[in-house]
Amino acid sequence: MRGDASRALDALRNAPTMFFVVFAASSKTSTIPGITAAGPTPEATLYTPTLDIEYLVTGRPLTMDVIPVTPEGIPTPAVVTRASLQLVNDARIVVVDAGVYREPLIPHVKLPSRRVGGRIDVEPALPPGTASKLYEEAKLLAHMLVGKAGNATTLVVGETIPAGTTTAMCIMEGLGFNAAGRVSSSMPGNPHNLKQQVLRAALERSGLRRGDNPFKVIEEVGDPLHVSVAGFVAGAVEKGATVILAGGTQMASVLAILSRLGIDTSRVAVATTRWLIDDPSSDLPGLIAEIAPDTPLIAVDISFHDAPYKGLRAYEEGYVKEGVGMGGAMLAALVRGGRAPREVVEAAYSEYARLVGNDSKARG
Amino acid sequence: MRGDASRALDALRNAPTMFFVVFAASSKTSTIPGITAAGPTPEATLYTPTLDIEYLVTGRPLTMDVIPVTPEGIPTPAVVTRASLQLVNDARIVVVDAGVYREPLIPHVKLPSRRVGGRIDVEPALPPGTASKLYEEAKLLAHMLVGKAGNATTLVVGETIPAGTTTAMCIMEGLGFNAAGRVSSSMPGNPHNLKQQVLRAALERSGLRRGDNPFKVIEEVGDPLHVSVAGFVAGAVEKGATVILAGGTQMASVLAILSRLGIDTSRVAVATTRWLIDDPSSDLPGLIAEIAPDTPLIAVDISFHDAPYKGLRAYEEGYVKEGVGMGGAMLAALVRGGRAPREVVEAAYSEYARLVGNDSKARG
Repeated sequence: MRGDASRALDALRNAPTMFFVVFAASSKTSTIPGITAAGPTPEATLYTPTLDIEYLVTGRPLTMDVIPVTPEGIPTPAVVTRASLQLVNDARIVVVDAGVYREPLIPHVKLPSRRVGGRIDVEPALPPGTASKLYEEAKLLAHMLVGKAGNATTLVVGETIPAGTTTAMCIMEGLGFNAAGRVSSSMPGNPHNLKQQVLRAALERSGLRRGDNPFKVIEEVGDPLHVSVAGFVAGAVEKGATVILAGGTQMASVLAILSRLGIDTSRVAVATTRWLIDDPSSDLPGLIAEIAPDTPLIAVDISFHDAPYKGLRAYEEGYVKEGVGMGGAMLAALVRGGRAPREVVEAAYSEYARLVGNDSKARG
Repeated sequence: MRGDASRALDALRNAPTMFFVVFAASSKTSTIPGITAAGPTPEATLYTPTLDIEYLVTGRPLTMDVIPVTPEGIPTPAVVTRASLQLVNDARIVVVDAGVYREPLIPHVKLPSRRVGGRIDVEPALPPGTASKLYEEAKLLAHMLVGKAGNATTLVVGETIPAGTTTAMCIMEGLGFNAAGRVSSSMPGNPHNLKQQVLRAALERSGLRRGDNPFKVIEEVGDPLHVSVAGFVAGAVEKGATVILAGGTQMASVLAILSRLGIDTSRVAVATTRWLIDDPSSDLPGLIAEIAPDTPLIAVDISFHDAPYKGLRAYEEGYVKEGVGMGGAMLAALVRGGRAPREVVEAAYSEYARLVGNDSKARG
């Protein structure tokens, strides 16, 4: 734990109302081969956000009869998120479409200006004017959910967007922060070189200059998701709510957007996993220290080393690490659900077992 | 007040979390000339739900620069709803698209199976299988919003669907209740004859028989909205939440659907306006007594007789009466907001004044 997290933890424990909000979007940047493991093939990564939120809410993917997995067959972190949230009695779940490739078959909030992000090495992420619209729409959504009941509300906000660490890095770089080589990856071998090729291509294509408008930066080298999360946070803190950004280095890009827009983030904390903090190939503490040094960073100390399933033991080897709000969901189970760490671990194992059924390949 | 409303009122006053949820949908039945006043022309009624929820949330319509009005220029009840909700600090607002004609330009929940309802005198309301899907999707939405925190949650549920009293009547008749001649209208001259012509044509076209499956009844002679509200109520009460159906005779059709599906409605109440109860051309108490006699009915005793605007004084002459959850919103201002009736009245006058600006035609 870094920074003074006590206020955020108190709010997570005691606020009368807690929402777990997941923003979902696709970016064609995820189809660049080798850039992300959030799907079995590059094209399949476009479906991952839809499948993630369908599974999170209903316990099974609906659009296709497959759980999103890495090429190695390691399942989405939504498994851990879902198991954890079931340990919190009053977690109210909202999923937000900021631009998914395929409409999810569950009730979901649409942002009117949602759209799939472009492949930023060869095209802009969003048409002009879209980033500020997404920001304002997500801000309005926060106002609707929070009302004037700010300090009665805690929002835990996660995300699902394959290649999100790449676009997050490009957003941070475009906004003038040093992010190259510091973002995480869903793979043990973080493809920093490939990500930085994308960054160089995107910067060259767009001709961005230091000090360009933050929304222009996002429209050129970003994606629809991070700016939407930033707008949501801005709307929530404006009403006095506490926000826990549940994610890894992508959430640093949300802080970067808020910082450049001059939004007070004193009611914002970041919650993540130990796997992400232990990742030698990324530097979330350093990014936060550079971007928003007063922001508390909370890492949940959970281990899957004794998991009876190799898909979960892989988390100890550097696969997955974060996503779909996994760290924040585990934190909610511990703090708001009042559960012991072992209960969270067992719940994840049980959920995984339910999911893979009697598939013997999963064991061993 | 009829029935034991004390539990519903206690829940509205004290539940830690209160949502005001508005379901919006269109039905081509509203384009039958003379059947509804919820729009300046028959075709314009298709846009009314979208404009209603845009205005409710933002204070102005976005899709078109017009406030939904009757042919006489009397504005949507959303004016009163918005004014009332601003007197409740912690009203959390959710709008649900169950099948609007034009996508609203505000964040809104989509039900995946949403669609505009057919004109029931000449075509089915919905394709086969749609009604049960909408029901299940709305039920899931309730589960997402309520979590397991049932008795900590009160849901006030309104609607906006032009010609909704006609389709509600047809649903009730199709389900075997006596509703012809008993539903309300947004006009002082309730066009019962026209509504019953539509009913006869719809029944003849569809060949429905007594005892047909409730979802089949809705798909033939109903609309996408009422079955969605019913599913939402079913999901909410299953989790132990209290539901206040905020509306007029349309809400009797929701109770009728729930009754035929065998859903326990002991945690459901109906809240409406005095204008609706005083309406000699409709019979909400009688409909509830026939369909779900234990359901408390609460009418808010508010008068606009001293309004400085003829558009609001018209409410005393039998125009509008209900809609967009107006009665439930006023009740929330009184009970949860702790406001005096006069404050609610003045808030409505102020909101109307803001809306019409210096339009002198509105005064007098």
